[in-house]
Amino acid sequence: MGEKEISQAVISRLPRYYRYLGMLKDKKVERISSRELSQMMNVTASQIRQDLNNFGGFGHQGYGYNVELLYSEIANILGLSRQHNLILVGAGNLGKALAGYVNFERRGFYMRGIFDIDPFLYGKKIRDIPIMPIDEIEDFIKNNEIDIAVICIPATASTKVVERIVACGIKAIWNFSHVDLDVSDDVSVENVHLSDSLMRLSYAMKSKRDRQESKGN
Amino acid sequence: MGEKEISQAVISRLPRYYRYLGMLKDKKVERISSRELSQMMNVTASQIRQDLNNFGGFGHQGYGYNVELLYSEIANILGLSRQHNLILVGAGNLGKALAGYVNFERRGFYMRGIFDIDPFLYGKKIRDIPIMPIDEIEDFIKNNEIDIAVICIPATASTKVVERIVACGIKAIWNFSHVDLDVSDDVSVENVHLSDSLMRLSYAMKSKRDRQESKGN
Repeated sequence: MGEKEISQAVISRLPRYYRYLGMLKDKKVERISSRELSQMMNVTASQIRQDLNNFGGFGHQGYGYNVELLYSEIANILGLSRQHNLILVGAGNLGKALAGYVNFERRGFYMRGIFDIDPFLYGKKIRDIPIMPIDEIEDFIKNNEIDIAVICIPATASTKVVERIVACGIKAIWNFSHVDLDVSDDVSVENVHLSDSLMRLSYAMKSKRDRQESKGN
Repeated sequence: MGEKEISQAVISRLPRYYRYLGMLKDKKVERISSRELSQMMNVTASQIRQDLNNFGGFGHQGYGYNVELLYSEIANILGLSRQHNLILVGAGNLGKALAGYVNFERRGFYMRGIFDIDPFLYGKKIRDIPIMPIDEIEDFIKNNEIDIAVICIPATASTKVVERIVACGIKAIWNFSHVDLDVSDDVSVENVHLSDSLMRLSYAMKSKRDRQESKGN
């Protein structure tokens, strides 16, 4: 399959397709036309056909897409057909929220352990996931085949922790710390910089205001 | 100023420049060369010069960029020179985390009120921000010049709440609900779809694995 030739732009849209196909699957919908999907997702039918044609002929004229097949093909491409084991570093409010999302498990992401520096939390659990001292993190990663670390601690502390966990084999970091992590090329990092996101919203608001004002003149 | 001609790609990089310039400002750095900034930010110096040249001549050969000036110019472009008033809908763990970020205030984003459907929370506060019944949301928006609503409730509930708040004048939504909101063109929406982000991480991991395996062959 031509996975390697799929463009970054298409890849970036795949999670959204996957989300909509998952909803259709939950509703027991077996097939869907590009036109129907286009109305649901608010993108053009031709964009959908172009995007999904990358995965080789799941759409047929007059038949539409086989929801189940397309869903599992996209899962494959996104690497969701294997199970991922996660740890969380930082049991603050954001960490608690992330540890509480059962939906991640539906997609094969299992939170196995939580680490914090607050001794008061040791031995406690969030949704049956134990909270442990940060000193045990290396052993835990090695003994539990952890592949993803979720970083929810202040920027000042995260660089050091990330060094430690990368040194013991972590290959992926989901980073909520407000800092850009400097890791080697074989480690994948996905940043969720919330204040950058808020600034993008602010920019979008300002653009709309500016357009309105220039219309008013 | 040629703000309107700045490309989307440059705009999307502005929050990051703003973040680094803010750190330099905090450290009382007055000027910085594109080379130094390039090392800090791990992008090429020529990219930095190209990006920042959009804002008209703040860089000078042999002098570098005036940190303060560039910082406030980017703030202007991003719409950060005006104050924004926010409300939060949903006081769960994620909502609590967002209400707790004092850093947003440094950038002019002030959380004014929190709304929830749990009567047990009414009258309580998070960082001096009152939690109120959702029925009071319309009046609160009108009386407190609220421009941004932060949506942290389950997908099933968010569509209806968003309809109500848009009807009473909200112009921007920071959406953490796992659903794409259908609003009119004059409302700005910035989505933070966490599971989409996790899938992008999974894809990045898989690509690296595939590359390693194909090297191994």
